[in-house]
Amino acid sequence: MASAQDFIRPGFTGSPLERIDNERDHPGMFEARQADPNARLLKMTGLDPVATAEGRLDWAPLSEAPGGVELALLGLIDDAPRFVALEQQAAGSNHNLIWRLLDGLPEGEAGTYAAARSLIDWHSRHRFCANCGSATVTFRAGWARRCGGCGAEHFPRTDPVVIMLAEYQGRVLIGRQPRFPAGRYSALAGFIEVGESIEEAVARELFEEAGVRATGVRYLASQPWPFPSSLMMACIAPVESDAVTLDDNELEHAMWVDRDQVMAALAGDPAAPFIAPPPYAIAHTLFSRWVAGA
Amino acid sequence: MASAQDFIRPGFTGSPLERIDNERDHPGMFEARQADPNARLLKMTGLDPVATAEGRLDWAPLSEAPGGVELALLGLIDDAPRFVALEQQAAGSNHNLIWRLLDGLPEGEAGTYAAARSLIDWHSRHRFCANCGSATVTFRAGWARRCGGCGAEHFPRTDPVVIMLAEYQGRVLIGRQPRFPAGRYSALAGFIEVGESIEEAVARELFEEAGVRATGVRYLASQPWPFPSSLMMACIAPVESDAVTLDDNELEHAMWVDRDQVMAALAGDPAAPFIAPPPYAIAHTLFSRWVAGA
Repeated sequence: MASAQDFIRPGFTGSPLERIDNERDHPGMFEARQADPNARLLKMTGLDPVATAEGRLDWAPLSEAPGGVELALLGLIDDAPRFVALEQQAAGSNHNLIWRLLDGLPEGEAGTYAAARSLIDWHSRHRFCANCGSATVTFRAGWARRCGGCGAEHFPRTDPVVIMLAEYQGRVLIGRQPRFPAGRYSALAGFIEVGESIEEAVARELFEEAGVRATGVRYLASQPWPFPSSLMMACIAPVESDAVTLDDNELEHAMWVDRDQVMAALAGDPAAPFIAPPPYAIAHTLFSRWVAGA
Repeated sequence: MASAQDFIRPGFTGSPLERIDNERDHPGMFEARQADPNARLLKMTGLDPVATAEGRLDWAPLSEAPGGVELALLGLIDDAPRFVALEQQAAGSNHNLIWRLLDGLPEGEAGTYAAARSLIDWHSRHRFCANCGSATVTFRAGWARRCGGCGAEHFPRTDPVVIMLAEYQGRVLIGRQPRFPAGRYSALAGFIEVGESIEEAVARELFEEAGVRATGVRYLASQPWPFPSSLMMACIAPVESDAVTLDDNELEHAMWVDRDQVMAALAGDPAAPFIAPPPYAIAHTLFSRWVAGA
């Protein structure tokens, strides 16, 4: 009963991290893992990784962590506890070095980085209680914060996003936002709102951004996207017509492309009608799988 | 190219609400919609709907809204603007009347209620800025809050959750939590964490809760679950073996059931080995579709 989807490996997936999240609230576990001589600290500068000369994630012995810095336990890799430091100024000290490293990271390392980055960023922007305004403190091995005032518990947020190709008579709809690099087009996308399903959000976004009506939705694959903490869900949606009405607040241009054109873009052909998203973006997976018949 | 999935209608989906979210920041739009003589207010008491005698959602003319109450624009139904009041004490005044109404609500009304409930609940617990602790105020027609101190913008959160049936040799794994009604079993479930895909979360939760290893993941359908604001994503995962190691912090019992047993439970047969989840829960959809060959 296994389907093709079992073998799709979008960017930022495949981390070897064992999260041991069911142990996070075990008394003494966090301290015991810190005392483990094999414990390692992910080397970061703000929200960026400090890479090795080979362009891999780098880990220091936990004993080299600066004194007094707050830690979170990411989980285990090769049975060794893996920590990150939760720095106060993480968000402000981001230089976006990650974008130069992503293409070269070994499989699975981007996923480990994604968990670390999203967690650091969430802590840096959630030091106070949204319920009462008091200061909060970390608990659950760095995976939650509790309010010192009202006692409310807060957990890292993950924002579900749909990203989808409208499909009509063998072509799919691609669009570009003004902020994209020159020539780049991608699938359309948008945040899922409260009270919506994935399928409803796909239909809503396609209609709002491009005026096309979905007649169905096929889920394809998902990936985390740690900028800051999205969960991207890639879908294909057959639509009623190829008449497009663009929302020019969202997109500056959109066009229909066929399989040959998408294949040319994925191959980096300079004659392709657009530049495809990079391999670590699930839009790339979506194009690749659509070309393969998904 | 439409698949069977196009016709799955889980609970809390199918709302006729047009969210017009791309108009929320248009200057004057919110005020103009409030001035529309057709504008309606969803009647609520805390987080519960005030139902009509027929057990439907009830709407009052917006002019009957109490003075000074903060409003959010849910969207349009039948071209009429639909509002909810954002009450300060919403979370505390919840009597859970909704559970008695859900089975009887006409199609689509549970989805409209889901959007309203999640939005009210989010505002009631997010009156302060998580970044700096200052008070926040609503903007974007009631769909966001802005901090009066640091200016940070905050948006309603939607928490993605995986709910899945492990499958082995024609049987699926069901479990019960101690808080379930007597006899009730359901699919296993858990929150997706930062840095994870849907497929990875399914595999992690099945291993942690039941010790079974997934060899693949098939996505089936999704639904919003407004208690308080989950997005449920239903999957089926073939596993390597039927040897179960239960995490008894999560589940008090688990068992493998075959198609006939699931069909008996869905039919309400008193001889069935378990009581199925109610139709408005996506676990019910998951069982129904699995029985149908999904």
